[in-house]
Formats: sequence, structure tokens, C-alpha cells
Amino acid sequence: MFFASDNSSGAAPEVMAALAAANDGFTRGYGADALTERVQDRLRELFEAPEAAVHLVATGTAANALALATVAPPWSAIFCHRHAHIAEDECGAPEFYSNGAKLVLVDGPHGRMTPEGLRATIAGTGGSVHGVQRGAVSITNVTEAGTVHTPAEIAALAAAAHDFGLPCHLDGARFANALVATGATAAEMTWKAGIDLLSFGGTKNGCLGVEAVVIFDPAKAWEFELRRKRGGHLFSKHRYLAAQMDAYLDGGLWLRLAAQANAAAARLAAGLATIPGVRQTHPVQANMMFPEWPAGTHARLQASGAVYYEMPAPEGREAARLVTSWNTTGADVDRFLAALAG
Amino acid sequence: MFFASDNSSGAAPEVMAALAAANDGFTRGYGADALTERVQDRLRELFEAPEAAVHLVATGTAANALALATVAPPWSAIFCHRHAHIAEDECGAPEFYSNGAKLVLVDGPHGRMTPEGLRATIAGTGGSVHGVQRGAVSITNVTEAGTVHTPAEIAALAAAAHDFGLPCHLDGARFANALVATGATAAEMTWKAGIDLLSFGGTKNGCLGVEAVVIFDPAKAWEFELRRKRGGHLFSKHRYLAAQMDAYLDGGLWLRLAAQANAAAARLAAGLATIPGVRQTHPVQANMMFPEWPAGTHARLQASGAVYYEMPAPEGREAARLVTSWNTTGADVDRFLAALAG
Amino acid sequence: MFFASDNSSGAAPEVMAALAAANDGFTRGYGADALTERVQDRLRELFEAPEAAVHLVATGTAANALALATVAPPWSAIFCHRHAHIAEDECGAPEFYSNGAKLVLVDGPHGRMTPEGLRATIAGTGGSVHGVQRGAVSITNVTEAGTVHTPAEIAALAAAAHDFGLPCHLDGARFANALVATGATAAEMTWKAGIDLLSFGGTKNGCLGVEAVVIFDPAKAWEFELRRKRGGHLFSKHRYLAAQMDAYLDGGLWLRLAAQANAAAARLAAGLATIPGVRQTHPVQANMMFPEWPAGTHARLQASGAVYYEMPAPEGREAARLVTSWNTTGADVDRFLAALAG
Amino acid sequence: MFFASDNSSGAAPEVMAALAAANDGFTRGYGADALTERVQDRLRELFEAPEAAVHLVATGTAANALALATVAPPWSAIFCHRHAHIAEDECGAPEFYSNGAKLVLVDGPHGRMTPEGLRATIAGTGGSVHGVQRGAVSITNVTEAGTVHTPAEIAALAAAAHDFGLPCHLDGARFANALVATGATAAEMTWKAGIDLLSFGGTKNGCLGVEAVVIFDPAKAWEFELRRKRGGHLFSKHRYLAAQMDAYLDGGLWLRLAAQANAAAARLAAGLATIPGVRQTHPVQANMMFPEWPAGTHARLQASGAVYYEMPAPEGREAARLVTSWNTTGADVDRFLAALAG
Repeated sequence: MFFASDNSSGAAPEVMAALAAANDGFTRGYGADALTERVQDRLRELFEAPEAAVHLVATGTAANALALATVAPPWSAIFCHRHAHIAEDECGAPEFYSNGAKLVLVDGPHGRMTPEGLRATIAGTGGSVHGVQRGAVSITNVTEAGTVHTPAEIAALAAAAHDFGLPCHLDGARFANALVATGATAAEMTWKAGIDLLSFGGTKNGCLGVEAVVIFDPAKAWEFELRRKRGGHLFSKHRYLAAQMDAYLDGGLWLRLAAQANAAAARLAAGLATIPGVRQTHPVQANMMFPEWPAGTHARLQASGAVYYEMPAPEGREAARLVTSWNTTGADVDRFLAALAG
Repeated sequence: MFFASDNSSGAAPEVMAALAAANDGFTRGYGADALTERVQDRLRELFEAPEAAVHLVATGTAANALALATVAPPWSAIFCHRHAHIAEDECGAPEFYSNGAKLVLVDGPHGRMTPEGLRATIAGTGGSVHGVQRGAVSITNVTEAGTVHTPAEIAALAAAAHDFGLPCHLDGARFANALVATGATAAEMTWKAGIDLLSFGGTKNGCLGVEAVVIFDPAKAWEFELRRKRGGHLFSKHRYLAAQMDAYLDGGLWLRLAAQANAAAARLAAGLATIPGVRQTHPVQANMMFPEWPAGTHARLQASGAVYYEMPAPEGREAARLVTSWNTTGADVDRFLAALAG
Repeated sequence: MFFASDNSSGAAPEVMAALAAANDGFTRGYGADALTERVQDRLRELFEAPEAAVHLVATGTAANALALATVAPPWSAIFCHRHAHIAEDECGAPEFYSNGAKLVLVDGPHGRMTPEGLRATIAGTGGSVHGVQRGAVSITNVTEAGTVHTPAEIAALAAAAHDFGLPCHLDGARFANALVATGATAAEMTWKAGIDLLSFGGTKNGCLGVEAVVIFDPAKAWEFELRRKRGGHLFSKHRYLAAQMDAYLDGGLWLRLAAQANAAAARLAAGLATIPGVRQTHPVQANMMFPEWPAGTHARLQASGAVYYEMPAPEGREAARLVTSWNTTGADVDRFLAALAG
Repeated sequence: MFFASDNSSGAAPEVMAALAAANDGFTRGYGADALTERVQDRLRELFEAPEAAVHLVATGTAANALALATVAPPWSAIFCHRHAHIAEDECGAPEFYSNGAKLVLVDGPHGRMTPEGLRATIAGTGGSVHGVQRGAVSITNVTEAGTVHTPAEIAALAAAAHDFGLPCHLDGARFANALVATGATAAEMTWKAGIDLLSFGGTKNGCLGVEAVVIFDPAKAWEFELRRKRGGHLFSKHRYLAAQMDAYLDGGLWLRLAAQANAAAARLAAGLATIPGVRQTHPVQANMMFPEWPAGTHARLQASGAVYYEMPAPEGREAARLVTSWNTTGADVDRFLAALAG
């Protein structure tokens, strides 16, 4: 009963098999191998973006920080949700990689900035030499609250960014879960909605550790490569990143895995909805939820073997973050619900 | 006939098997898993350093840059050989991670600084507020010239560092090859010789991508962890780094693989020595060599399928870098020699 | 009728005279001159801090950013008021000098953090490796809202910092105005209240451009000097910084100038209080105020020659920032009031 | 008998007078004053560069580091002479401001790079993603060895830079002395010879502390302004920088002062040439020289009141750096020579 994080899961068998298959023989290093080239082509095809630059790294923090540093100057503001992963969970990686850009936090319910809130925040910055300049917007989908932006919602935020002349980044650590939740295509959720570059996550959804940075305007691609190398994120045995991503894309595995995670979450949420005293803090739309329940529940659940993060809660209540993943079983969900129902 | 780099090789079967074995079930992320703890213990045991801090990253550049930034302040000089990997092949990663420390280059034959040269260079820096201060010394073993430092040679360089109050880092991307070449133990080649922290390489010697940073004085361990996270180098599914390293250490696999690489190099060097017109630029001591041969040889070798890096050479001559790895076969070596002998 | 900023004023005659007097002859550069030494001693005496390190720079932004970088690591949070000068008016200088520390903003009425708000904000950060660590607290006195902290209020904020083990910085760009407003001594407003280091402003209060950074624990003094040099803030002809500061301190000139500025502000505020439809946004406690008045007033004032910054205001209203300085005359104040009264 | 540095001298009376004159009344801050605008126009006129961006800072290190950071990316190499001021005397300011660019040192006799040496060094860098990229070239005139580049020599170096597509910076801390020495105009020594941006020094030549950064292609001007502000180098009471520069340019004062310094140096060098056992390490071409003399001379000179820097010297010899300035008197020179002749 592991609901701590989707990074608590292992890798999908197809990914492990691809890794083994890629192990044979000698290849050029640093991404100059045929498998890497194939993966780049596949991603360009998936995103319907034949000109896009595609680069692989091993962690989501690297993907986000490198992408943002490539578009946001050191003296600029990166606008994001107050609880964005880049703001709270990367130990200042965006500030480090950008040489000191400032994350300017935008409030909004359920982990989502509103277009109005974003516009007002952007409008309140920039101008004279005394303040930081407007740099970039970063949106997360699936959000840290487990909610999902539709392509239209992404488009409204990206339009706000573009109206101020700013590039718009998407942190897609759980991009597959967002697509499954909305039925959108990769292109609809990104450049067709105004996204300029994204972190396309694999790690949390059945890979070992791989993320693709997709830059729709390739003018900045070489700078990205230099930043990646300089950050120590260019793998010498690059085939192992490529093999994961290749299997991940193959036959729609990535969407199938995300669908499994989302379905497990839906089953869990449906069960929670029937238990008196349990309420969700945020709408459950993908593979992550934040239920609140009566004090004392943590002890019972954890005694039964459930593993998850505790969250702050009002007096007399307790709260949790529950994350499902591609290999969360229905049996696990049901055992959890049974333990909770007590 | 792949002699381009040891990172052109795949991973050893034992490492692949460990990766597959580690894939089962759920674990805590970010290094809070049992396998990571075991690997840390094993490395402390291997280095006979029960207090050492041990952290895993996926690339050698990350290991070096993070280690150096942890000990060398932004306004300091890092002393290293003119052709050190950190000086020539990391796109300024040490400068980036340290926020602008200066690599001060020390000359020396065959990729090795001399203690006298190092001392003179250190003595020539520091002092007033106008110049950068003395920061750290970084030694490479195996060097970029393919030569090996003995523990006594390391000790002489580390003594120079310590006499100026400087910490001494070892870039051990090919540490196993250096141990095999010298017969030294891990402890003899490091802290017993005065090394304060090292990058212990796995990637080039049969792993997919894993390096351990071993910090003998653990006072800086937490800072290292923050730097690693902030650099995007803390793997969420950390078990996959740990599994590689675990297999690598298991039963002395790491030394066996390095011995295979060194033996292949010795066979290759012995063969080259018999071919008229071929001479080595540097002594061949581990798994890398830099032969020089008559102009026209490249074309013949490459037509026969040999892959390697070309190096600058005097008029009328050509030069190459040839690297063997754990899975370089005797047949490959012999085919190469035959093609060369023409 | 110049109320745009106290940096719109010239320097006091005594300061200009000291500059001229210091111009004679040859001296050692870079602060190794007798005048600099004298000024350092005088500041140590003024602050009753015989061990303090004292260093001069030419701008307030340099003083703040260098001071903060010396105590707050790159991966840390600097806690300050949402509208602090370091947050809004230095183009990210603290982020630049600290190599990416994060300014975490604390709300509070009239430009002042509350101890409770500060404690809650600090408590909500730090902990695991995923977020930035707690770094330092920075307080401004006089605040950007023109209000003043008493020593007791400073002490309450510094106690919050110290309870979390954090150093506490004071941005004293208008330190003299704060002392005049409260009657506190320099020591009472700083180390006796828990301040660990401060920017002691001269520029806005009758100097040309000089600020002293006073570090009560001198352990970090050498690092500060290196950061200052590296930032390009070590003046070669250092005597010109020292001469300004020397005259500034001489015979209490600094307090006399601040008293003149505060008195002009009091006269202006008293006059504004008698004009119907004018209200102050913040209490007027030093030399800066933020009145709000009916729409249409700006045009009338500016036509009469008044110069000041306009501020955002509610519908149908206008708002201004008015700053007085050591040479604001009573006649100027009265002309302004007359123009406003219309 | 102060020959330690030209920054040991005070400011010229005309500069002090201009400072006093500029002190009257109120002005806009941060360079938005009429005097600053006038100075910018005068510098554009002086350099025959109507489009150039002109910005003032207070120190030479700030001018150099800000200028270089504006044109050289973090992952690039800045090519300069091994003993350039930016390499040896700025405590890593270029590395800090550029976020980690690498200074790649070029040898050359008497403080001057040769075009061939520069070309070979540039050619040996760049290329793949593994090394730093080619960034910028920085030339110093007057050099740190006291020698002077002619416009033709500057042009040959700038041509090397441009052939590789690199911008060419001139560190002109002693620019006036170089012009006087060569008879060149400001334009001939800079953009007509291929210089793209320069630090135009005032501090060492009769000002208190002011340098102009002149950027001939104004496309980078706004970025420069942001970097200056963020570095804490935008003066609020900017008129005091402008006033210095205004007086400095007025009626050719700057050239007159430099001519005085150069003449004093020539007199000193002529005297030294007549003293047995004294030889110059470098040709004396401007206001700085490096004589070598018999051991024991330092003691005699210093006993007689001479102040200067000692330099390393061969066994049995001593060496010195002697710098003259605008107010070095003939009497001082003669006393020094007399003391030396003993």
C-alpha cells in the first residue's frame, strides 16, 4: 500500500526490456547514437513539431531548471503558482541555473494560476531598471494539487504570458496523466495552446529516470545543450536515457501507464467518497489526491501498512497526500479503503 | 573495433541483472531506500572510512563539479593539470557549480602535475584581496594522458596541497583502472595518501551511469546534499543508481572489469610496439593510449571499421586516442593491429 | 519643490569640504590609508562594538547584497518584508550576489513584518533537502513605507530570527532618520537588539555616495572583503569614501541632517493633515510619506513645480510618495502645501 | 616620492571644482539628470560614435567585469594576456559577473598578446559541447607591463577576434596615457581598430572614481544597465559620477593629465637609464615602469621615503614597479633618482 509518490514505483517491464536490449554493443557517447536520434524523431512526431529541439535528461528538476534558464535571464522574474514544484521542491534549482532569476508566486485555487491573477502579477513587475524584468511563465500540468489544466486553460495562461512577450514553459512531470485526464493530444496541450517549451516527464510514470525537454523554437537549442553539459546532465552512455524513452513512447505505453495510474486514483477517490468524515481538499483529476479525515486515522492506516505523506490539517483533522502509479493495484486500493473504513 | 571511449561500452551483465532485481516493488525515493543505505555502507567499508559521507550521482561531471564546489569558494583557485578533464571537458561545470572559481592550470609531463610544479603554482597565487585565493587541488587518476599515479605520487601532490592548507580532490572516473594498475587499495590511493574527497567512477567501467562522491570528512556532507539537489542531481528513483553501484562492488566486479580493460590495453600496446613507425606519446599504464603513426594510417584503419578519436600530430604523422574497456575483446585488439600493420 | 527622493539632494557642505581636504597628497589605495582606519574606528566607537568589522562601499544595493551574501548560502531563504528594498528595488542584487538565494516575502502592515508573521513564515520553510534552507532575516529601518521600528520591535524580529538560528541583517539606508525618530542609540538599534550586521547609510542623508557595512561578529570579515573586491566595490581611491563618512560622523552631523529631514516631513505631514480630502496611507514617522488625495491634484501640484513619485491609488483618488531630505526648506514645504490647498 | 600607483594620487583641481559645482540643488537620481546626459553626449562625440551606449560606474573592475559579462556567455572563454588586470587583479570579478566564464590566458612579451598567439589560442578552444565556447577577447592598453599598443596593434588583435566571430573589449583603465603615448584619437584606438566596447578610465588619471563603459553597438545597452543595477553599481546620486567625467573631458583635461604622467615617467626613465646597474624589464612607453637594480637598493630608496611596489627579481637583484601620475612632480622624480644614485 504505497501511496507516497509515483517515484516509489519501479519501471515498467517494457522499459526494463528496452534497457537490456540497448545494452548490446558499442555506440557513440553523449547522444550521438542512433537510438537517441530515433527518440528525438519520435518525440517530434508525437508533438507534431518537426522543427522542435529535443534533449534528454535524467531528472525533472534538471529538465525544469535547464529549460527555464534557457529562456529567463538572470535579472528576470519567472511567474509560477505559489505551490509549483519549481518554487517549493527543487531547493532553488531554477535560481541556481538561471544565475539568480526570481520566482514570483501567483496564487490560485487548487494549484492552478488564474489568467487574471497571472496577468495582474506580471503587470505589477518590470518596467524600470530597479526591479527585475519580466522573464517567463511556468505552468505545471498535472499541478501539485493533483488537478489538471485543459488545453483551453493552458491557452488562457499562455496568452497572458505572450501578451507580455514572455515565453511559456510547461512542467510536465506528469504530462501523460494530464493528457489521459483530458483526452488532449500532446500538441494540443502544448504548442497549440501556446507552450514554448516543456519538460516531458517519464520518471514518475514507469521509467527509471528520464525526461525530455522539448523546445518548439529550436533557436535556443545549442544554448540548452551547453547548459546541460555544464550542469553535468549530459549522459556519456546516453543510450540508456534514449532506451527508456523509446520504450515509453512505443505503442502508446506512456499513455497506458498513465491511464492505469489515473484509474487507480479514480477508484481510490470513489471509495473515499463513500467514507463518512473524509473529504477531498482538491478535485481529484489525475493520479494524486489530498484527502482530509478525522484525527486518529493516520495511526490506523499506517498500522495496516499504508505509506503516504501526511499534510497539514485543521485542528481535529488529519490530511494526506496519496499518489497512485502505473502499478498500483486495485487490491492495494481496496485494502487501503478497508483499513480506512476501519 | 570500438576504441573511441570506455563510455562506448555497454554495462556489465551483473549490473544489468542488479538493475532488474532492484525494479521490484515500492521503495522510498531520493535515496531513503535500503539499497542505497547498503551501498553507502559498502563504500565506507571499501574505503576503510567508517565516517565518510557517500553520495551517488549519475555523471562524472556532476561528481567532480559538486565535489569541488563543496570545498572551493567562489573567489578561489582550483589547481589542476592543464589537460585535466575538469579543465577541458566539462564545459565549465566547475566554474558554474562553484559560482566562478578559477581553474589555475599546472603543467607536467604525461598528464601528471609534479609536486614542485604544483607547489610553485600555488605559491604564486593568493595573498592580497586583489587576486583569487587558494582553494583546492584536484588530481586525476587515471590521468587524461592514460598514465597512473601511484599512491606515493598522490601523497606527494596531496602533501603540497595540505602544506598550503588546501583540500585535495581526486577525479577517479577511472579509479578502478588506477587501482588495478598499481595494486593499491582504495584507502591507500585516497585518504591514506591525503585525498580529502573523490569522485569514484562507475560509468566508464561497466555501469550505465553512476558515480559515488566519497567525502572523508563528513562535515560538508549536508552542504553536498543541498548542492546535489539544487543541481538537479538527486534521483527520485534513487534505487537505480544504488543497484548499479551495488553490483559494481559485489565480489570485486569493479576490479575485475578494470583488469579486463587494462589487459586489453596492454595487449594492444604490446602489439603497437612491434609495428614500425608507431610510437606512444605517453606511457601506457591503464586502459588508454595515444599512439602516433605515419600519415595515411587513419584512412586504412577507419576503412577497416576502427572507431577512435583522432589527435593533433606533427607534420607527416597522425595520432590517435585509443581506449579499451571491460568488454574489449582480444579479437578486436588483434583485428585492429592487423589492420594497422596493413 | 523636490520630494522625489532623498537621493535627489546634494551633499552637505561639511561633506564636500572633507572631500576637498582629503584630496591633498598621496595615500595608499584600497583602504590602506589613515583616514579609512580612522573612520573604521569611529564607527566601532559609535556602535560601541570594538570588535566589529567595518567596510565602506558606495551604494546601498552593494551594501545590502554583499552583507546578505556573506551570511545567507545560495540554497537558503532570506526572509524580508514583501515590499523591502532588497525585494523590489535592487533588480535581484541579493539573488545575484548570493548565487541564487530566494527572497521569501513576509506580509505586515505599513512596511513592517510582525514577529508572528516572520516566525510563521520561517517555520513554513526549510527541513528536507527539497526546499531551500533557512538563511537570514533582513529588516529595513526606516521601512519602505516610511515607518520606523523601535529597538524593541527590532529585538522582537531579531529574536524570531535567532530562535531559528538565523543571522539578522538591518538595511539602514535611512538609519539616521530611524535613530532620530526613536531617540535610540546606534547600539540600541542594532546589536543590543540582536542585529548581526547592517548597512549603515550615508548616501541618502547628505553624502555623495557612501555606506558602511558593519559586521558585529568579525569572523566573516575577510570573506566580505573578498566579495566586495570581486563585486568591483573596493575603491582604489578609497579615501574619498572615508572622507565622506568621516565628515558625516563628525560632531553628529549625520543625526543633525536626519533631524532636519524628519522635521521637514513632520511639517509637511502636519500641513497635509489640515487639508480636506488628503489622508496618509501609512503613519508618518521619519522623512517619507504616502499621502492620497483627490484625482486631479497631481496636475495642479506638478504645474506648480512639485516633483515626486506617483503611486497607485483607488478609483477617483491619486497617491504620491513624498520624501524630504536634509536640505528640504520650510519654504518648499509651505509652497507645496499652498499648491495642494489650491 | 609616491610611485606606488596612480591611484595613490588625488583628483585634479578641475575635477574637485566640478564636483562642488554639481552639488547645488536637486536632480533626478540614477542617471536621469542633465549632467549625465551631457557627459554621455560628450563621450559619444569624443569617440565619434553617435550611436554608442555610454554608462558610468565608479571602479575599473566594475567597468571591465560588467562589460565582459555583457558580451561573453557563462559557458565561454575570455581570451586575454596572462598578466591582464582582469586575470590577476580583480579577484575573479569577470568570472563572478559572467557566471563562470573561463579566462583563457595568452602569453606574449611585455604584457602584449601577439596576434599569432591569440589566434592559436582561440583556435585551440571551442568546438564540441565538452569544452567552453569562444566568448570574447579582452585587450589592455596601457598594458600591465606599462607598454602601449598602437592602433595598428589593436587592429591586428581585434581582427583575430573578429575572424573567429568574437567581440573585442578594451580595458582602458589608462586609456588616456595610451592615447598620449601614440598620438591616436579615441576613435582610432577603439572602434576604428575593431574594438567593440571599452572601459574608459578616469580614476587613475585625476578623477576620484569614475569609469565610462562605451558600447559601440547599443543593442546590448539595456542588458548592461540591468547588470549594472543588479551589481549595485548604479549610483543614486549619479551626478557625482557625471561631474567628474564632465570635468575630465572638459578642454582636454584628461589628455593633459595623462601627458603630465607620461612626461614624469619619461623623465624618470631617462634618469634611470643613466644609473649603472639599473635596467628596465619592459620598454617604458607610458606612466609605468619595471626597473631592476642591485640588491640592497630597496632599503636605501625606502629609507629616503620612496614608496612603490617591490617585484620578484633574479638572485642578487631587486625589482620594482614605479608608476607616475598627473601630479608627480619633477622634483619628486629627481629626488628619487638622487636617492637611487646614492
